[in-house]
Amino acid sequence: MTAFPGAGAPLGQALEEIRAAAMLRPDEGRVADYIPALASVEASRCGIAFATIDGEVHAAGDAGLPFSIQSISKVFGLVLAMQRMGDDLWQRVGMEPSGQPFNSIVQLEWEHGIPRNPFINAGAILVADTLVSHFSSSRQAFLSFVRRLSASERCDVNEAVLASEARHGSRNAALAYLMKSFGNLEADVEDVLAHYFFQCSLEMSCEELARSLLFLANRGLHPLSGEQVTTPRDAHRVNAILSTSGMYDQSGQFAFSVGLPAKSGVGGGIIAIVPGQGVITAWSPPLNRHGNSTRGLAMITELAGRLGLSIY
Amino acid sequence: MTAFPGAGAPLGQALEEIRAAAMLRPDEGRVADYIPALASVEASRCGIAFATIDGEVHAAGDAGLPFSIQSISKVFGLVLAMQRMGDDLWQRVGMEPSGQPFNSIVQLEWEHGIPRNPFINAGAILVADTLVSHFSSSRQAFLSFVRRLSASERCDVNEAVLASEARHGSRNAALAYLMKSFGNLEADVEDVLAHYFFQCSLEMSCEELARSLLFLANRGLHPLSGEQVTTPRDAHRVNAILSTSGMYDQSGQFAFSVGLPAKSGVGGGIIAIVPGQGVITAWSPPLNRHGNSTRGLAMITELAGRLGLSIY
Amino acid sequence: MTAFPGAGAPLGQALEEIRAAAMLRPDEGRVADYIPALASVEASRCGIAFATIDGEVHAAGDAGLPFSIQSISKVFGLVLAMQRMGDDLWQRVGMEPSGQPFNSIVQLEWEHGIPRNPFINAGAILVADTLVSHFSSSRQAFLSFVRRLSASERCDVNEAVLASEARHGSRNAALAYLMKSFGNLEADVEDVLAHYFFQCSLEMSCEELARSLLFLANRGLHPLSGEQVTTPRDAHRVNAILSTSGMYDQSGQFAFSVGLPAKSGVGGGIIAIVPGQGVITAWSPPLNRHGNSTRGLAMITELAGRLGLSIY
Amino acid sequence: MTAFPGAGAPLGQALEEIRAAAMLRPDEGRVADYIPALASVEASRCGIAFATIDGEVHAAGDAGLPFSIQSISKVFGLVLAMQRMGDDLWQRVGMEPSGQPFNSIVQLEWEHGIPRNPFINAGAILVADTLVSHFSSSRQAFLSFVRRLSASERCDVNEAVLASEARHGSRNAALAYLMKSFGNLEADVEDVLAHYFFQCSLEMSCEELARSLLFLANRGLHPLSGEQVTTPRDAHRVNAILSTSGMYDQSGQFAFSVGLPAKSGVGGGIIAIVPGQGVITAWSPPLNRHGNSTRGLAMITELAGRLGLSIY
Repeated sequence: MTAFPGAGAPLGQALEEIRAAAMLRPDEGRVADYIPALASVEASRCGIAFATIDGEVHAAGDAGLPFSIQSISKVFGLVLAMQRMGDDLWQRVGMEPSGQPFNSIVQLEWEHGIPRNPFINAGAILVADTLVSHFSSSRQAFLSFVRRLSASERCDVNEAVLASEARHGSRNAALAYLMKSFGNLEADVEDVLAHYFFQCSLEMSCEELARSLLFLANRGLHPLSGEQVTTPRDAHRVNAILSTSGMYDQSGQFAFSVGLPAKSGVGGGIIAIVPGQGVITAWSPPLNRHGNSTRGLAMITELAGRLGLSIY
Repeated sequence: MTAFPGAGAPLGQALEEIRAAAMLRPDEGRVADYIPALASVEASRCGIAFATIDGEVHAAGDAGLPFSIQSISKVFGLVLAMQRMGDDLWQRVGMEPSGQPFNSIVQLEWEHGIPRNPFINAGAILVADTLVSHFSSSRQAFLSFVRRLSASERCDVNEAVLASEARHGSRNAALAYLMKSFGNLEADVEDVLAHYFFQCSLEMSCEELARSLLFLANRGLHPLSGEQVTTPRDAHRVNAILSTSGMYDQSGQFAFSVGLPAKSGVGGGIIAIVPGQGVITAWSPPLNRHGNSTRGLAMITELAGRLGLSIY
Repeated sequence: MTAFPGAGAPLGQALEEIRAAAMLRPDEGRVADYIPALASVEASRCGIAFATIDGEVHAAGDAGLPFSIQSISKVFGLVLAMQRMGDDLWQRVGMEPSGQPFNSIVQLEWEHGIPRNPFINAGAILVADTLVSHFSSSRQAFLSFVRRLSASERCDVNEAVLASEARHGSRNAALAYLMKSFGNLEADVEDVLAHYFFQCSLEMSCEELARSLLFLANRGLHPLSGEQVTTPRDAHRVNAILSTSGMYDQSGQFAFSVGLPAKSGVGGGIIAIVPGQGVITAWSPPLNRHGNSTRGLAMITELAGRLGLSIY
Repeated sequence: MTAFPGAGAPLGQALEEIRAAAMLRPDEGRVADYIPALASVEASRCGIAFATIDGEVHAAGDAGLPFSIQSISKVFGLVLAMQRMGDDLWQRVGMEPSGQPFNSIVQLEWEHGIPRNPFINAGAILVADTLVSHFSSSRQAFLSFVRRLSASERCDVNEAVLASEARHGSRNAALAYLMKSFGNLEADVEDVLAHYFFQCSLEMSCEELARSLLFLANRGLHPLSGEQVTTPRDAHRVNAILSTSGMYDQSGQFAFSVGLPAKSGVGGGIIAIVPGQGVITAWSPPLNRHGNSTRGLAMITELAGRLGLSIY
């Protein structure tokens, strides 16, 4: 890994430095508090991991602690749905950046119930609908998929988060019913939301997340398990959508300043794909106003700058 | 250039094949007709060029004929403004994909006169405002810049197109006055629009365009002239915005299916940057409903697929 | 009643003429077909009634046949909620015309879950929430209220319509959940929607409807029962909202061409209040693109013109 | 005039009382300051006038002082255009309430350049376009019209206000150019705006305004001059649009709490039509957040309540 031009130090040491610098930043951002189970996470948690396609995992800080992956689960859901549905999926969800908040109902109305992309809430609920319709138990299938990718049987749902999500899920219910009213939801709304809240409530560590997504950096082939998770073409495609739409309404700025396909979640996690090299995961709970982890952004920006990782 | 993996033939021959295949497609799309000077261009024109950073230019079909570059001029305008203004520019224009039509006035209203990015019309008009304010003659400065980059003194404005643009420019005037009402336009609206219509009316050939933009594929350094046009960082940034916002409301789909930073114009031109390798330009007048050249899209998609050019 | 200036004939005869003229109009409009139970109503049905505050009811055609009152029920719901909640109601629902389709979710989002007025769907669902919260059985209370006003125990819900509404109610569910997400819905969404669909499914005849609403033409005092249903001030207020917002996105045009407070429903009914004189009800199923009965509009326009009823 | 039921005192005395009460209200609202010429008006100015169709004018306070009528001029413009164009006018401007701010450009875009009604800015600019197109000198024609109606040669434009309006008119220019881009503006944008700013800059007193609009309370016949200014039908129509759309985004609330056709301007004036009786004008510069005079609203609400003037 010292082969990274500009790393100037073993990668593990670089991660430690970058994490330490992030901890020195003035206290910025707010831990998500729309549900109590998230609000109680310690704001000072901070970890970073870089899994490379040759099998190494470098890490610093709290990279081994499980956290609520929240919207990062949309990546797993999308890949699983692409495996199952093939190109039919793209009749029901778009691939364009939204230019709107992640939970906008306005745009869904304009576009007649077709979500702009699979990484806004409406899009992920649509993807959940396809999973519910294709699997006898979509939740079990989802969990098995994530465990297989991460090679970790420990990955599981946090029941307190799950219960909270369901209790505070009125806006997601509104999105789902609006899609139903346009005829773009097949399963029962209740079942679809149950799946959606389930996958949002999954907990994983930085290390597990980074390992599990290596196939996206490796043309669809998981380097650890040897499983061809997607075609090379579909791996490019997922990375393309991550690049234009993965970081909420800060996706353009992330492309501009970092230049990697990435996805964030309100639990404070961010995953970034480095095509041909590996996957970075950062985690720290305080969020900026766009819903992205402030320390997570700082760490990934610094690391990508040092190593010259921008794909552009 | 035969080094391209998968090219399977000298690049020039591949371009000929790809162009021939595009010509066999059923007649799709409509030549832009909002101004007479564009409507009169022959729909059967079709050219493609691939300039590489080692100085070669491969071409097929009408790649040497000048055409109206229209919105592709926004790339030159942005680069020139970045040279002059540095990071201050990004106080006045955003870098997020818009999720709206290129000439949307709705979004500009919501966002209080700050255009979402420099490649929608409002954004390019904002960029024009900075050029008008920074140069004694912004039009002359713009023309000199493009001629230097393309190493072609022939590049010039089509006066008939220019006159037409001004006569049919009411929507752009509305965008400009709306920005003015929000205090985000410094110069006189008339002067700003005059510059904007001027740059839109420029004519260049595929070969000239491809050559002129090589610096974006080469970390800001123009390989032919040796001029450092932008910093490496700014070259990444321009490519990032091109990737998320360059192809109108088809930017996400282009990233998904091609995977290159690109910009199109309603004259039927498309430029695509291949970082580290070169620049592709395609031209054919008939447009799809998004305003992108149908044959141009087909040719670039095929070429990028054959050569495995996706950056994702 | 021959005292109406310009009537030129006994009122009953005028109604017959007007109805006959309406039946000769070329077949315009479409019977509502979003639920089967409405689609099966005969398109040729056509009735009109004029109840005056001195107790007479003049009628022509199918004025004695019950039909699905649909959104006209929003008037009863509003009056019942005003009785119960007083001015507190107006903290939770506005009184401004919407300028948007009756079932717009966009506006509800912009206005943070506060419906613009009680006659768009979101507003009526909000009103239903207050009824569900204030009555042990809001549906029974609603039915009793309507039966008392119309002095007809026959008024009842059509069970087939009710079942259909619930099955096709996804958009209304989306509106309700969106209000819930903004904290502007107190009761369970399911209960609120059950009440809302119940009241929409009520069937009444033109004669019953006209009689039941006489209090709005008589400063709140029901001339037949002697019940002071609302204060004079609240009767003015209901008529004011009917005038600005009662006819969907044709309210302005109805004020312009007729000039009476009115409310329509997709069952083909229209009620119009003539302050100081009485209530007109027209019914005929085919609707124009705004959701208003084409023959109903024609009949009321003609009658108001003949009798000079405009309040403006 | 003592015949008003409930006046309980000669009308002149009632107006004095009402004005005095309004002056005691805590200082609410802000004088319009978007142009200096308006910002310099004394906030303590306060007048009210009631002209009756039998020729009397009752007044209190500053009812004889000229003030900037601003958007009240839209009523004169509309009536003049209706005289000239007849029903053709309604092909180019709607009659529906807008549910949006008076200067919204969003709605104009959605509705393809057809303004929702003649009392929002876009609608009044459209009306100005028809006047510019129909008169050799629309400004002179407009001024003559207002002077004739008010029987006051003194009515004139304030040149300082006019110059200010033009300098701060970018948003109105944006509206005009957007309509032009949709093909819904015939004359030159510059000429149309010049007319529009001219009519906005007119100064009249409460007494002059009340007298000039008496024809709207009298079925189109001006009781002082004997001129049939509009047909009875068109007088109803103007009052109908005033009722649904005259008080900016507070039109519904004004109908609800006052119940009279009315129009306000950011100069602090409000006119209210009392059909069959007369015209009330109130003036006091401080505005609420909707752009309506706070004292003006208070005075008209009180007067209408005392005299039972609601039309509903």
